[in-house]
Amino acid sequence: MKRLLLLNGPNLNRLGQREPKTYGHHTLQDVESLVTEAASAYHYKLECFQSNHEGELIDRLHEAEGTVAGVIFNPAAYTHTSIALRDAIASISVPVVEIHISNVHAREEFRHHSMLAPVCMGQIVGFGIEGYRIAALGLINKLENEGREADG
Amino acid sequence: MKRLLLLNGPNLNRLGQREPKTYGHHTLQDVESLVTEAASAYHYKLECFQSNHEGELIDRLHEAEGTVAGVIFNPAAYTHTSIALRDAIASISVPVVEIHISNVHAREEFRHHSMLAPVCMGQIVGFGIEGYRIAALGLINKLENEGREADG
Amino acid sequence: MKRLLLLNGPNLNRLGQREPKTYGHHTLQDVESLVTEAASAYHYKLECFQSNHEGELIDRLHEAEGTVAGVIFNPAAYTHTSIALRDAIASISVPVVEIHISNVHAREEFRHHSMLAPVCMGQIVGFGIEGYRIAALGLINKLENEGREADG
Amino acid sequence: MKRLLLLNGPNLNRLGQREPKTYGHHTLQDVESLVTEAASAYHYKLECFQSNHEGELIDRLHEAEGTVAGVIFNPAAYTHTSIALRDAIASISVPVVEIHISNVHAREEFRHHSMLAPVCMGQIVGFGIEGYRIAALGLINKLENEGREADG
Amino acid sequence: MKRLLLLNGPNLNRLGQREPKTYGHHTLQDVESLVTEAASAYHYKLECFQSNHEGELIDRLHEAEGTVAGVIFNPAAYTHTSIALRDAIASISVPVVEIHISNVHAREEFRHHSMLAPVCMGQIVGFGIEGYRIAALGLINKLENEGREADG
Amino acid sequence: MKRLLLLNGPNLNRLGQREPKTYGHHTLQDVESLVTEAASAYHYKLECFQSNHEGELIDRLHEAEGTVAGVIFNPAAYTHTSIALRDAIASISVPVVEIHISNVHAREEFRHHSMLAPVCMGQIVGFGIEGYRIAALGLINKLENEGREADG
Amino acid sequence: MKRLLLLNGPNLNRLGQREPKTYGHHTLQDVESLVTEAASAYHYKLECFQSNHEGELIDRLHEAEGTVAGVIFNPAAYTHTSIALRDAIASISVPVVEIHISNVHAREEFRHHSMLAPVCMGQIVGFGIEGYRIAALGLINKLENEGREADG
Amino acid sequence: MKRLLLLNGPNLNRLGQREPKTYGHHTLQDVESLVTEAASAYHYKLECFQSNHEGELIDRLHEAEGTVAGVIFNPAAYTHTSIALRDAIASISVPVVEIHISNVHAREEFRHHSMLAPVCMGQIVGFGIEGYRIAALGLINKLENEGREADG
Amino acid sequence: MKRLLLLNGPNLNRLGQREPKTYGHHTLQDVESLVTEAASAYHYKLECFQSNHEGELIDRLHEAEGTVAGVIFNPAAYTHTSIALRDAIASISVPVVEIHISNVHAREEFRHHSMLAPVCMGQIVGFGIEGYRIAALGLINKLENEGREADG
Amino acid sequence: MKRLLLLNGPNLNRLGQREPKTYGHHTLQDVESLVTEAASAYHYKLECFQSNHEGELIDRLHEAEGTVAGVIFNPAAYTHTSIALRDAIASISVPVVEIHISNVHAREEFRHHSMLAPVCMGQIVGFGIEGYRIAALGLINKLENEGREADG
Amino acid sequence: MKRLLLLNGPNLNRLGQREPKTYGHHTLQDVESLVTEAASAYHYKLECFQSNHEGELIDRLHEAEGTVAGVIFNPAAYTHTSIALRDAIASISVPVVEIHISNVHAREEFRHHSMLAPVCMGQIVGFGIEGYRIAALGLINKLENEGREADG
Amino acid sequence: MKRLLLLNGPNLNRLGQREPKTYGHHTLQDVESLVTEAASAYHYKLECFQSNHEGELIDRLHEAEGTVAGVIFNPAAYTHTSIALRDAIASISVPVVEIHISNVHAREEFRHHSMLAPVCMGQIVGFGIEGYRIAALGLINKLENEGREADG
Repeated sequence: MKRLLLLNGPNLNRLGQREPKTYGHHTLQDVESLVTEAASAYHYKLECFQSNHEGELIDRLHEAEGTVAGVIFNPAAYTHTSIALRDAIASISVPVVEIHISNVHAREEFRHHSMLAPVCMGQIVGFGIEGYRIAALGLINKLENEGREADG
Repeated sequence: MKRLLLLNGPNLNRLGQREPKTYGHHTLQDVESLVTEAASAYHYKLECFQSNHEGELIDRLHEAEGTVAGVIFNPAAYTHTSIALRDAIASISVPVVEIHISNVHAREEFRHHSMLAPVCMGQIVGFGIEGYRIAALGLINKLENEGREADG
Repeated sequence: MKRLLLLNGPNLNRLGQREPKTYGHHTLQDVESLVTEAASAYHYKLECFQSNHEGELIDRLHEAEGTVAGVIFNPAAYTHTSIALRDAIASISVPVVEIHISNVHAREEFRHHSMLAPVCMGQIVGFGIEGYRIAALGLINKLENEGREADG
Repeated sequence: MKRLLLLNGPNLNRLGQREPKTYGHHTLQDVESLVTEAASAYHYKLECFQSNHEGELIDRLHEAEGTVAGVIFNPAAYTHTSIALRDAIASISVPVVEIHISNVHAREEFRHHSMLAPVCMGQIVGFGIEGYRIAALGLINKLENEGREADG
Repeated sequence: MKRLLLLNGPNLNRLGQREPKTYGHHTLQDVESLVTEAASAYHYKLECFQSNHEGELIDRLHEAEGTVAGVIFNPAAYTHTSIALRDAIASISVPVVEIHISNVHAREEFRHHSMLAPVCMGQIVGFGIEGYRIAALGLINKLENEGREADG
Repeated sequence: MKRLLLLNGPNLNRLGQREPKTYGHHTLQDVESLVTEAASAYHYKLECFQSNHEGELIDRLHEAEGTVAGVIFNPAAYTHTSIALRDAIASISVPVVEIHISNVHAREEFRHHSMLAPVCMGQIVGFGIEGYRIAALGLINKLENEGREADG
Repeated sequence: MKRLLLLNGPNLNRLGQREPKTYGHHTLQDVESLVTEAASAYHYKLECFQSNHEGELIDRLHEAEGTVAGVIFNPAAYTHTSIALRDAIASISVPVVEIHISNVHAREEFRHHSMLAPVCMGQIVGFGIEGYRIAALGLINKLENEGREADG
Repeated sequence: MKRLLLLNGPNLNRLGQREPKTYGHHTLQDVESLVTEAASAYHYKLECFQSNHEGELIDRLHEAEGTVAGVIFNPAAYTHTSIALRDAIASISVPVVEIHISNVHAREEFRHHSMLAPVCMGQIVGFGIEGYRIAALGLINKLENEGREADG
Repeated sequence: MKRLLLLNGPNLNRLGQREPKTYGHHTLQDVESLVTEAASAYHYKLECFQSNHEGELIDRLHEAEGTVAGVIFNPAAYTHTSIALRDAIASISVPVVEIHISNVHAREEFRHHSMLAPVCMGQIVGFGIEGYRIAALGLINKLENEGREADG
Repeated sequence: MKRLLLLNGPNLNRLGQREPKTYGHHTLQDVESLVTEAASAYHYKLECFQSNHEGELIDRLHEAEGTVAGVIFNPAAYTHTSIALRDAIASISVPVVEIHISNVHAREEFRHHSMLAPVCMGQIVGFGIEGYRIAALGLINKLENEGREADG
Repeated sequence: MKRLLLLNGPNLNRLGQREPKTYGHHTLQDVESLVTEAASAYHYKLECFQSNHEGELIDRLHEAEGTVAGVIFNPAAYTHTSIALRDAIASISVPVVEIHISNVHAREEFRHHSMLAPVCMGQIVGFGIEGYRIAALGLINKLENEGREADG
Repeated sequence: MKRLLLLNGPNLNRLGQREPKTYGHHTLQDVESLVTEAASAYHYKLECFQSNHEGELIDRLHEAEGTVAGVIFNPAAYTHTSIALRDAIASISVPVVEIHISNVHAREEFRHHSMLAPVCMGQIVGFGIEGYRIAALGLINKLENEGREADG
């Protein structure tokens, strides 16, 4: 059974309690359940990891190489500043999808630019926690098509 | 039966012929078929419109008010420059999802900023034409949930 | 009988319905009636034209040459981006007055700069639709004084 | 009888003598007569004050609170630099109209930005001294309509 | 007989009447005759098109694919702002030469940068209408040499 | 008995009336009483001065030299623009503490930078009028320690 | 007994040894004793935590929610770069006071801007370690007043 | 006997006491004596005026019109910020020479730019108080030559 | 017989060997032969000069005054940095045409701006060495027309 | 026996696997062997440490004080963003040499600036892993010379 | 007899012929005579050197060390771009005075900034060729006073 | 015997005399001896050249092609401004190592950016004259390894 990694960055452990007008009332557990369900419908097993530590997120991305087929990553605040996470994504061959719950483009200007997007497969912004689900669908669709093409 | 509008901006009529390394080999017709199918699975009818004229895109957004439940919009080059399209989106109450085929964040710097994203519901970037399909899924999910909440 | 042109740019056809907190509840028809009345008090006939198409606004400015004595122009979103409209105004000898309903200087930074103001006779900002009326008064005053001076 | 304040900032005491190609040949007295006449037609009495001292202009704006119904203010050079005048306008509830004789947008770049416009009711630029007259008309129109609405 | 397209952008229909100090006294017809003559000397037939509408210029560039051997294009004001025209040029395989009548580098700073030049074959600036003629010569020279090389 | 100077800049005479959501409901008199009390607890006499005139604030800082042991200064709007006040503070040997009632860093960008802070002893921001009291405590603590060290 | 948290960021463990011309000769222990004493005078118990790890500081801020009444935070170098710490502060309801020992505004330009200040209650800069003490006084004053108001 | 005006701006009353490493040990009186002597050698009488008030400096420049043949002006801190002083200089026909005691170009970046220099006859920087003397020599030389040319 | 000067700047002596993907395989001698032939067809004699020394290029431009009718100049790297060459061109009355072999607008950003273009007659970019030939044609056309007009 | 510390930052644990076109095929172990050998030739013992955690790198720099004679540090992505590491280096008296394997100046613009270089002894860029060896040689040379000078 | 060096940079050999509206009708010889005369009045011998070559100007500044007492330098266009000349001035102990004939601050923006001023003794701008004379007076005055002080 | 070129740019002839606090007390001859010795240990002969003339440095780089195996280049002030030297380096196939004696990153901001680094093999900064020696070691190491690989 193939595996996906759901990676959540700083302050997302406080989802549901944290600025609900911006991030909604769902918790991180809700997110993890939602994506687990969506993935299992396509026979993918989901690993989940959240950390407030940039270094731990880098370590986890390194471990993804060779162990998971794809990563769904909400880098939260590190999106806008972390060259180290960018280099970590570039250092592995696993495709990474970047996702943001809120519409970052409608918020402070420093949230408009992503250091990570150029090395990610794609980016989903502003769909609330539904964004995680369609990120999984888009990622799996890509993995399956590549597989099918490789088979064909 | 509810309706969605699929709106495509300048040069997307040349999809498939236009810079295939960047935009792939699928045509605009392929895109329209893909989204029509995805929408009809949820009992939504899809209207399709493409134009190279900023003014016609504005006119079409105005017409969307009161006639469709949501818009999937690839504004292409106008994404980065058109305040008029931004104001058109802000002037209607229909939710608009912005979608880009290529990973605009990995291309020229002038493609990194969207004038429209702040007034759109969400933004999907870099999934190829699959992005249109998950944009439809995300948009319909939102419309259905709102309906259900309104019902409940 | 002398003539004036009232030119309205993109999204102003939605006046009254469009973001009423910013633009108020009056419609474009209200604006056109208000200015027609103000102009006719000074024996000027008013022509009215609105378009969402930059090219049509350029065409209409070209036609103004030799047919109207002055133009009252709300370029809306094109104010901030259109060098083509600037060149159109510079290419005719008819005086053009720029007018904005809302106080653009109290809104997003990209609305603070006008590409057109340097080639217009003057600019009126933030008086609501009353701004159109005093624009007409100021423009007619200027035309009459020049006429009088030329007579004298 | 209601009162308006006509406030003129630095170097406007030299109007008529000062760079006539830019500011014309009318004097400050001409301006004050013109606005007095326009105001009295609507039964408003005009107070006039000019100063080259930023502090005196601030003091005078403070005094406006509770004594006049509106202010017509040409802040001249302080327009572009004075946060203190901006705060003074924001600190009172009397509406202030900003007016400039010349088309500041067609001059040096440092004259294109107004620190005061965001806290003013509106701005009139480039109509010569006629701008003061239509500023008065626009301001009175607003005061009367508010009165009427409050009555009704 | 091979064909070239001469494409002229916004406000160039007013050539000769428009700011003659900057653009000279020749009309658009003069330009079209001059280039027709230069092209026919090399057995090329010239098609001519002018529009103030960005969308029509895009449409016309799309049509150029497969019908003409090269394009001489004066994009006028759209030079500095239109990513849509840039994408249109990049979407076709026909070589495009950019030409400006006036020395844009000696004018306002916003005229110094071209969005289109990076995807054009070359750029000619400041030779007056003679620039169109040498643009044709340079373009034909290139087309003939490529042909000859392909033959040889 | 040692003395301190409490210096307040433009528009602070309107404290309590001025934008109470930003500045609160306390008046300048309240501030002066609060600091007088805090100072007298440490046997310091407080002089108070407020002006809307940049020049008078400069004059008053010059007079501080040799007459007071320290200055608590809310430069208000002049904070962000006045090199002259900066030079005045640098020209005297009396320590100056800069204080702001509101959290200037959470307001408009032009309020984020202080021209004066680099030549002040310290800066207190966002504590409301309590900021004045702790500014006095911090300043007196420093003066006493220096005295004690000088004694020792 | 109510509690406060004293949080110190990177390199502050080296206080006293680290660049003493800039940061003085007091150690972190001195700081912690000073604030403990100031807090206990008002019957507040102080918890102390220092870390060089951004992630640990985020974790500790999360823990503050519901366990302490306020936070005194010297974020040191992370002040200028950490959006993750900003989001952590915004994600909790406990008031946070930002404090800097040296006058950051008199040092390198990259130290002039704080990413955290906009979401903190207030900011104290340049008072040396005395700044910690008055930060505690200001914070406690605010907590007590709010309590009193809530009681009354 | 012809007259010159020596105008000194903010904080120059503290010359000699103020930051002597930057401005030296000479007082304002020394400066005024030095220039009086230099001017009287050419039969010019010197008027001297110093103020910390921008408004008073503007007033004094206005009075210069028609009463003095030239102005030697050290605008100090207002050099870098005052558009009002620039407009005052532009509003009179008397030539003004700008002078700075210290080498402003070797100091903070905000001292490198002069708002006034473009409307002054010339600028002298960094010669210490000797700069005032050679400013007077240069100004008188120019006045005498113009007189001589007008005579001839 | 009239003369033209062909001036080539730094590193153009290495044409053909230097980065052939960018500059092609033709040598400087090829360029000089091509332009000599084009010029002689119109009875112009060509002088050729290449130098890597900015000073020698300036000297040569000075010598052009009064000895040649026009200059074709490829300033290479000095295009983007040399105010001294700009002043040299402005100091002579001979028309200068600027030419670049490669499409500088499609290369590094520092190659997009020309310090010289504003004082040149025109600019030709990106036609390869054919650009030199059409530069000569355009320059001669201009010289002949001026002569003819002067004759007529 | 004297000791050196070899410190490697984020993603360098993936050397050899990570983007080999940029970083080559040598592993971190290869680097550590190379430098150990170079150091032992001069009788220095090498300690090696790699971490993806900014905080751990700071901790390790603090420990260097008093235990090693010098540090060879490849801060990787943290080079461009970490003020905390800069402060850590400034807080110790041990000399630190900054080294980069790739030519960072030939890559993305955000890699051109180093926050750390100003507080390091020197910087070596672009020599591949050989850069580590010459960094060691340069550092030891400096340490030996200082020792010798101190002895002499 | 003491000596001064008068150094003139690029294009100043064309003084009198070059853009006389900006630089006047005097020639370089006139300038050299004027300064020779002014210097000899104080018993200084003047050496004169002009070059269009940056390298020759650097060489000449190096030779100045130990051979002349001071330098009067008009670096012309190199003022704004040459770090090499800046370093040359910093590398010698002879004082250098920078002088410009025209008012560079009233011209193009790229002429407003001097790379050299920070390492020069002073700067004189906009006095025409009279500026050279007063530069000599100011420089000699400084040299004499230092001599006198050294004697005393 | 293989050869290397040691190239030194402007003002380095004054090494030892020039700002010794920044550049130390060693002379250019010391540098040349040091590198000659280091090179000869690996059987490389060193050619040395210094010039203050940008053009001569370009000429010398051109001559390096085919005559030396590598270049050690301290471009001094031209580092930051010379596109012509950049192009010269790019025009030859000989590897060039850039070296700076002082830590340019700890000095003025205009010294932080190198125009040359992107086209050099590597860059060594801040090791004093020892930097030249390790530059030679690194360069020779690279040349030998490439030779060895080519042999093998």
